Amino acid sequence: MTDTIQTAIVGVTGYAGAELARLLLRHPRLKAMPPVFAGRMDSKDEARGGIPLAEIHPQLASGSASGNLRLEPFSWELLLSRGVEVLFLATPHEQSREWVPEALARGLRVIDLSGAWRLTEAANRAVYAFADEGPDQPAAIKAQAAATQALAVYGLPELHRARIAGARLVANPGCYATSIILALKPLVAAGLVDLDIGIVADAKSGVSGAGKAPTAKTHFMSAADNLSAYGAFTHRHTGELLEQIGVDASQIVFTPHLLPIPRGMLSTLYVRFRETKTAATVSRVYHEFFRASPMVRIYDKTLPQIQYSVRTNYADIGFQLAADGRRAVIVSCLDNLLKGASSQAVQNLNVMLGWPESEGLE
Amino acid sequence: MTDTIQTAIVGVTGYAGAELARLLLRHPRLKAMPPVFAGRMDSKDEARGGIPLAEIHPQLASGSASGNLRLEPFSWELLLSRGVEVLFLATPHEQSREWVPEALARGLRVIDLSGAWRLTEAANRAVYAFADEGPDQPAAIKAQAAATQALAVYGLPELHRARIAGARLVANPGCYATSIILALKPLVAAGLVDLDIGIVADAKSGVSGAGKAPTAKTHFMSAADNLSAYGAFTHRHTGELLEQIGVDASQIVFTPHLLPIPRGMLSTLYVRFRETKTAATVSRVYHEFFRASPMVRIYDKTLPQIQYSVRTNYADIGFQLAADGRRAVIVSCLDNLLKGASSQAVQNLNVMLGWPESEGLE
Amino acid sequence: MTDTIQTAIVGVTGYAGAELARLLLRHPRLKAMPPVFAGRMDSKDEARGGIPLAEIHPQLASGSASGNLRLEPFSWELLLSRGVEVLFLATPHEQSREWVPEALARGLRVIDLSGAWRLTEAANRAVYAFADEGPDQPAAIKAQAAATQALAVYGLPELHRARIAGARLVANPGCYATSIILALKPLVAAGLVDLDIGIVADAKSGVSGAGKAPTAKTHFMSAADNLSAYGAFTHRHTGELLEQIGVDASQIVFTPHLLPIPRGMLSTLYVRFRETKTAATVSRVYHEFFRASPMVRIYDKTLPQIQYSVRTNYADIGFQLAADGRRAVIVSCLDNLLKGASSQAVQNLNVMLGWPESEGLE
Amino acid sequence: MTDTIQTAIVGVTGYAGAELARLLLRHPRLKAMPPVFAGRMDSKDEARGGIPLAEIHPQLASGSASGNLRLEPFSWELLLSRGVEVLFLATPHEQSREWVPEALARGLRVIDLSGAWRLTEAANRAVYAFADEGPDQPAAIKAQAAATQALAVYGLPELHRARIAGARLVANPGCYATSIILALKPLVAAGLVDLDIGIVADAKSGVSGAGKAPTAKTHFMSAADNLSAYGAFTHRHTGELLEQIGVDASQIVFTPHLLPIPRGMLSTLYVRFRETKTAATVSRVYHEFFRASPMVRIYDKTLPQIQYSVRTNYADIGFQLAADGRRAVIVSCLDNLLKGASSQAVQNLNVMLGWPESEGLE
Repeated sequence: MTDTIQTAIVGVTGYAGAELARLLLRHPRLKAMPPVFAGRMDSKDEARGGIPLAEIHPQLASGSASGNLRLEPFSWELLLSRGVEVLFLATPHEQSREWVPEALARGLRVIDLSGAWRLTEAANRAVYAFADEGPDQPAAIKAQAAATQALAVYGLPELHRARIAGARLVANPGCYATSIILALKPLVAAGLVDLDIGIVADAKSGVSGAGKAPTAKTHFMSAADNLSAYGAFTHRHTGELLEQIGVDASQIVFTPHLLPIPRGMLSTLYVRFRETKTAATVSRVYHEFFRASPMVRIYDKTLPQIQYSVRTNYADIGFQLAADGRRAVIVSCLDNLLKGASSQAVQNLNVMLGWPESEGLE
Repeated sequence: MTDTIQTAIVGVTGYAGAELARLLLRHPRLKAMPPVFAGRMDSKDEARGGIPLAEIHPQLASGSASGNLRLEPFSWELLLSRGVEVLFLATPHEQSREWVPEALARGLRVIDLSGAWRLTEAANRAVYAFADEGPDQPAAIKAQAAATQALAVYGLPELHRARIAGARLVANPGCYATSIILALKPLVAAGLVDLDIGIVADAKSGVSGAGKAPTAKTHFMSAADNLSAYGAFTHRHTGELLEQIGVDASQIVFTPHLLPIPRGMLSTLYVRFRETKTAATVSRVYHEFFRASPMVRIYDKTLPQIQYSVRTNYADIGFQLAADGRRAVIVSCLDNLLKGASSQAVQNLNVMLGWPESEGLE
Repeated sequence: MTDTIQTAIVGVTGYAGAELARLLLRHPRLKAMPPVFAGRMDSKDEARGGIPLAEIHPQLASGSASGNLRLEPFSWELLLSRGVEVLFLATPHEQSREWVPEALARGLRVIDLSGAWRLTEAANRAVYAFADEGPDQPAAIKAQAAATQALAVYGLPELHRARIAGARLVANPGCYATSIILALKPLVAAGLVDLDIGIVADAKSGVSGAGKAPTAKTHFMSAADNLSAYGAFTHRHTGELLEQIGVDASQIVFTPHLLPIPRGMLSTLYVRFRETKTAATVSRVYHEFFRASPMVRIYDKTLPQIQYSVRTNYADIGFQLAADGRRAVIVSCLDNLLKGASSQAVQNLNVMLGWPESEGLE
Repeated sequence: MTDTIQTAIVGVTGYAGAELARLLLRHPRLKAMPPVFAGRMDSKDEARGGIPLAEIHPQLASGSASGNLRLEPFSWELLLSRGVEVLFLATPHEQSREWVPEALARGLRVIDLSGAWRLTEAANRAVYAFADEGPDQPAAIKAQAAATQALAVYGLPELHRARIAGARLVANPGCYATSIILALKPLVAAGLVDLDIGIVADAKSGVSGAGKAPTAKTHFMSAADNLSAYGAFTHRHTGELLEQIGVDASQIVFTPHLLPIPRGMLSTLYVRFRETKTAATVSRVYHEFFRASPMVRIYDKTLPQIQYSVRTNYADIGFQLAADGRRAVIVSCLDNLLKGASSQAVQNLNVMLGWPESEGLE
């Protein structure tokens, strides 16, 4: 077990990157100040070298440790000279596709928060149309992409703890995917769910999930006092659901909705059981599945609400059965920027380094 | 066809009652000022006789017609002396169970906005445990309740236009029920839906749906920046879904959620088709079903959002099909206080009087 | 008095323009369908000719009259061929500076909602740095600008009813200015206020006041759960306060704040009286000043709140005196898109045409 | 300097009490688990002994340290047997008037978060009408109240650090008072402010400031999408402003407003200077005044916003001068439950025990 290491973040200008900086700064096993970088290495960002993080995220006002962090001009040499061992990428997925091979080549371990490396099946990746898999790419590029993909481990510690421990590249899950997989996997793995009937995943996310860029959708006037469904049958996180839960596209319907709140996510899952079950049985399945998982809380008496998990690093899961014992509604809540992104990345770091999984997260 | 009539409202102190007063005041076929009354005829409310509605609903500030309306002390004599022909009850369901028989006995036609008379099946009514159906009630009371129930017509004009026209008692539907039935009935009636697979109805409502009484649940601190599921498998509107859509309890799951917005409702419905269908077919089914229904808008290009129907009298319905043509997500939006309550009551009034269905509602 | 006329709107793509379209459509003295145009006459907007307004403002969904309105490609010929007599400009102020002279030259009367023509004093206009007043402009341009400015009447009917009636160009006031001037002018005009002490105007506006363009400031994440002050001592509406209230810059401080709500505005005004006054006296001053003003409501018992005036066409004014009778807090509320913009423009139209001032606004 | 002590909280059922429990649990110098008690020692609360705090504050869900805390049935014996040295009272002010003398008599030091002991002047206390100062009270009760009052130190460490260090009873300031006094005191103390002109304090608070009891005012429907002024000239915190800033009632006007957000407070202060000042001078005054004050942050480049201080333990102060150098607008932000209540109480504890003032607060 390593005692203390140095990390770095590329993409600290986004919401998840900023939360990640905050978490790394207070992590008891990490060196004092992680170098942090903007998300796009273009000339505009170069010019931002030296800017305090508090100028980009005014919420991190001066006086707080994360507010005092300053953006640095990125170079691989700087990373190596600082002794960085694990690199967090909170970058757009195309950038992650480019940068991860280079980071691995330089001996860094990588935790990538984008959708770049999460999907094993080419068919599921199609929705991203990654440039390095394009038909006109040189074979060497395609080969490198394939080799990198082969190294990637899906970074949901509750499912892949052992493989994450040894991984060089961890693909941190999507927020919707985390919320839904954690709620469904225990029941599906235990063989309870009638997959012929199919699963419905109705998910609702706060606006931070839509990113920091001002758009018509994220304008206060569009988002406030509203609720809208989007991306039914087509959302990019669908592939993660299929691969991780172990279902095919005909067995699950996933509809995301945009909630008029800054952060937080609630997924309502609908399943039919193959046989009649009691609440006690279902509860036992969840408790056993998550016995060694400190970042998941099972609600046995009530259903979780978004408020209970916002600004925590936990995923909260509760359920209710129909009187017939054949159908269940499961409610799964988390903070989309934390267990749905940044704190999950730290959890992965802990697993990779052999530290207690909840180190720095409670 | 009657040219103009007098109406009255009992229960104008609640949100739906206030919206109803606003609508009646601007209805072109109604006499100038409907008498309005508080919702509970106890001594406290007696004392409120003469109070301007604007004191109870400060939003209806002085200067507006509805703000200037004054609460009157209720008596049947007063109603009859004013020539009231149709009485709206926006009262708690127990009060409606008591008052409706009396109103009918006096020759009034009644539109009741509560859950008192909506359900035909005793099994579905059980959740309300109506006092007049209690085991210890005198037979005369039970008989009167049964007779009254037999007169009631479910007040969803899109389904029961002809029966509403002749009804003496219209049971105005619940807001969730309106939203869900309108979205599902056309598909089920056309035989498209595989009921063995079952239907999922995931519904989300603004806080006005929880009523005007200050409670822990309606406290700003509980409702704001939150989302919570409640009443899974047990919500009182479930019976309306079963009876009106024509399914049994094993064929539909309904979960309501409380949204952090003042008003508006969005239901996301999940169905599987018995056979592959195209979007064009589904669209045609909806358009044909609602051909003569001016208060329903079908969205063919996009999905409706809550903002689009809030403060309108419309129900908005849109849908999206899976690539396999076997599954559909339907989104249904309305304003819970309007098409989910008050404007639907006015729509029923229009049908009862033989007026154009959208009179006073556009 | 004219019986009915044709109007048109340029700039219907913004929030105020859309509200204006809604109001004109239901105005009983206007011809059925006003031609409406986008706000910028560039090639992008040309291409929008024919687009239903509902595509730009999805809230105006199909089925409603304003939702069915279609953008037309602008030309002066089209305006004249339709018989337009009064043109509303809901355009950026630079565009209004260019277009108003041309409209006047073609014999149109204009109600301009921008800040282009509101200010009489060159010193107060400096903050706008209008291109047509620039040092390098040809003398003819400057002369035309000056001549146009000389025609402009400040469109606050409560102050300038008679001049508006005969005006060819009405400069519709800013929302903050309307809210503050209406609250202060009666007291200052009556000589009650000690101007040496100075007036404080602390104003708070909903996000629609910041316009429809997605910006960092209007992003839901910045605006929600927040309050921020901006533009202290420098806001563009300050000149309107000085000219209309009749004070100099040392006698008033005005600080706007951005509220986390879609619409509505509340200004809190602080004055000291030259002599002790009773609440009855202050009330009388307000009632007398606004005796013939149907769009202002005086609150004598309570203070107005934002909710009371949102989605109404009224300005609400209330006040509270200190026990010493020397100081007053005045609270002024209105809907920034209505009495703060669009419904005020319609009120001006009514005055210009000799119609009842509240026609189409109650 | 004491190394570690035991504390306790009475009134942990309110919002401020819950935040206080959270802070005490993570304070590095406090013993593991503070005993916590409900706010009212009536039979209803007795019965709550043993209830986990998470049942009363569901946000403190199981798994977190504060969520696992359990309410205990209160007795003085229990307090003493646990070795409690400092008692926090987050109780209604009448309860604090009763309990504080008893706690002091048993040798406890007390930090009282209510308004019970903050005011030195009887005239300022009149608004509370404390029972123990009533005309019919026995002389002994009145004497005890007076003696207790004489012991109380106003718990604003930035002003009274030395006296707090030795205090047996610290009266923790009101949230509005903290926000306004910190912004004004440095300027008034430096003799900059023209008090004849008077100060305006326009303050805006989130809904948690209105307490946990469900009321018409705290109902989501009243608070959301709204802003309202209340208590102009009469708010209970006014006395604190007078005594701590050192002005009389004619020299300051204070108007609180209710914001549609859960937590956070912004005060906008308006002053006129006796002589022309530069921004550099004003900045220097603030920096010098707060040189040794770790919990105050001065903004020199921008104005603070509510978002910047919410969920932090800081008070944020910024300002802007008029071009004439004679007038200033000062903006002061804090979290009403933290620096406006609970974290300020912990700051006082730190000062009382001789610990670093920000211990457990960064």
